[in-house]
Amino acid sequence: MNNITDTLIDSIEQTSNPTVAGLDPRLEYLPEQLTKCATSPESAAGAITEFNCRIIDEIKDVVPAVKIQSAFYELYSYYGVRAMEQTAAYAKKNGLIVMADVKRNDIGSTAEAYAAAYLKSGLYDYITVNPYPGYDGIKPFTDVCKADGKGIFVLARMSNPSAAQLQNIVDTDGQPLYIRVGELITEWGQSTIGKYGYSAVGAVVGATNPDEARALRRQLKSVFFLVPGYGAQGGKGKDAAAAFDENGRGAIVNNSRGIIAAYKTDKYKGLPYYKAAREAALAMRADLRNALGK
Amino acid sequence: MNNITDTLIDSIEQTSNPTVAGLDPRLEYLPEQLTKCATSPESAAGAITEFNCRIIDEIKDVVPAVKIQSAFYELYSYYGVRAMEQTAAYAKKNGLIVMADVKRNDIGSTAEAYAAAYLKSGLYDYITVNPYPGYDGIKPFTDVCKADGKGIFVLARMSNPSAAQLQNIVDTDGQPLYIRVGELITEWGQSTIGKYGYSAVGAVVGATNPDEARALRRQLKSVFFLVPGYGAQGGKGKDAAAAFDENGRGAIVNNSRGIIAAYKTDKYKGLPYYKAAREAALAMRADLRNALGK
Repeated sequence: MNNITDTLIDSIEQTSNPTVAGLDPRLEYLPEQLTKCATSPESAAGAITEFNCRIIDEIKDVVPAVKIQSAFYELYSYYGVRAMEQTAAYAKKNGLIVMADVKRNDIGSTAEAYAAAYLKSGLYDYITVNPYPGYDGIKPFTDVCKADGKGIFVLARMSNPSAAQLQNIVDTDGQPLYIRVGELITEWGQSTIGKYGYSAVGAVVGATNPDEARALRRQLKSVFFLVPGYGAQGGKGKDAAAAFDENGRGAIVNNSRGIIAAYKTDKYKGLPYYKAAREAALAMRADLRNALGK
Repeated sequence: MNNITDTLIDSIEQTSNPTVAGLDPRLEYLPEQLTKCATSPESAAGAITEFNCRIIDEIKDVVPAVKIQSAFYELYSYYGVRAMEQTAAYAKKNGLIVMADVKRNDIGSTAEAYAAAYLKSGLYDYITVNPYPGYDGIKPFTDVCKADGKGIFVLARMSNPSAAQLQNIVDTDGQPLYIRVGELITEWGQSTIGKYGYSAVGAVVGATNPDEARALRRQLKSVFFLVPGYGAQGGKGKDAAAAFDENGRGAIVNNSRGIIAAYKTDKYKGLPYYKAAREAALAMRADLRNALGK
């Protein structure tokens, strides 16, 4: 079975862009022409699907992947979940790698059900997973990764201010929790390492903490990073660069609002939302390439 | 605004039963007459709703609450999510307190979207939440708990074998992570303490680790516990008793398979699944009352 992270890296090199566009469609990001009829969960979900598909049309040759934030779909009841599935299917049809940011976590047969729902189903290539339950909560996912060529990103060091509250607790060996989690992630991915040296079990590592990202990058040689926090959360290309290896590989950087709501900023004023999204994805490519010295 | 944990405790005392029935409808738990037509996600979801509603009819005067395990609904695409919502609405209409076991976790406006979807919507009274993101991932939920009289259970010490992998990591003060998380949960609930001394911010504490449950019970005076692991996972009434306070309050014990699939065991052989569920819920009441010396 193929290693999905090989495919992702190939696709990043093809587009010269280690950017994943975050499809987190808060209704206030949508233009009025789409939301004026969104008066019910069903019609809101319809507007979101339309918004996403138009953006996918415009960015599909500029980014290798999209990341769908489940919360903004679950908000619209099962209609929202259907919109999420429709968005994923459309992105896949257009050649994009599709990540579902669901941060699921549970144990045994319950985790198996999540793995079946999101990965085995073929709907998504990657999902995000929370490590708190330990290996019982990871194995059901890595089993599917191995059998079906799928991947996961496990939360290690997040980008929010209070992330340190648990993640930086230091153990009796002097290791912060996020490093311990990082070591476990390395171990969990050992049997799925691909041609670039990266496994199908990646880590979420925030761009707002470049020192920690650098420490993790040095230690976790075989772990590919999904980097949130670029743009709206304050992270810049040079911060995100800390998550990359010496070949300029090893990470993909997420940007949600900065791409899908770019048309609301002065810089892209006057452009239709999907054109602004394309321009923002191109600008982010330039910023990252510059930060990586390419 | 009412404290939901007051309502839960009142309801536990009324039924004399600190049991929450777990509606985790794996298809193999359903009788053949319901599954024989379940050939698509839509029809499987329909069978699950029917199964749940019949069980709710039979147990609604015997248990105070039901807990719906989201994974087994998400497995059937948006049809499953609809079945989950229908089950919740039916349980609420029948006077039960409804918990959604979703273990959601995210930060800022994303966590707000989850809080709106599950709590503010009125669909559920409680949801389970993962603490890994720290307070940024908790505040959006506790805000809704305060404003709308809802509750959360935050994962502290889980019941699975590998739970210790992260949760028992010991910090430089000699405290295991689950105790640190327990202290945070206490703090997060301080502004929602009700008439029984328990807040709307509870903790998930597994029944398979009675020593740890006892340690947590002693330390976290104002934190109500949701206790998984009874029955199929090996926990017994006397183990679960460790999670209760000196008044026999302070916890509710979940049982899923042991109730909804009771008809598959020798003990209840020959009974229809819903009658067996009722008998199993009554037997669990007797076991817990006995263990609590009532």
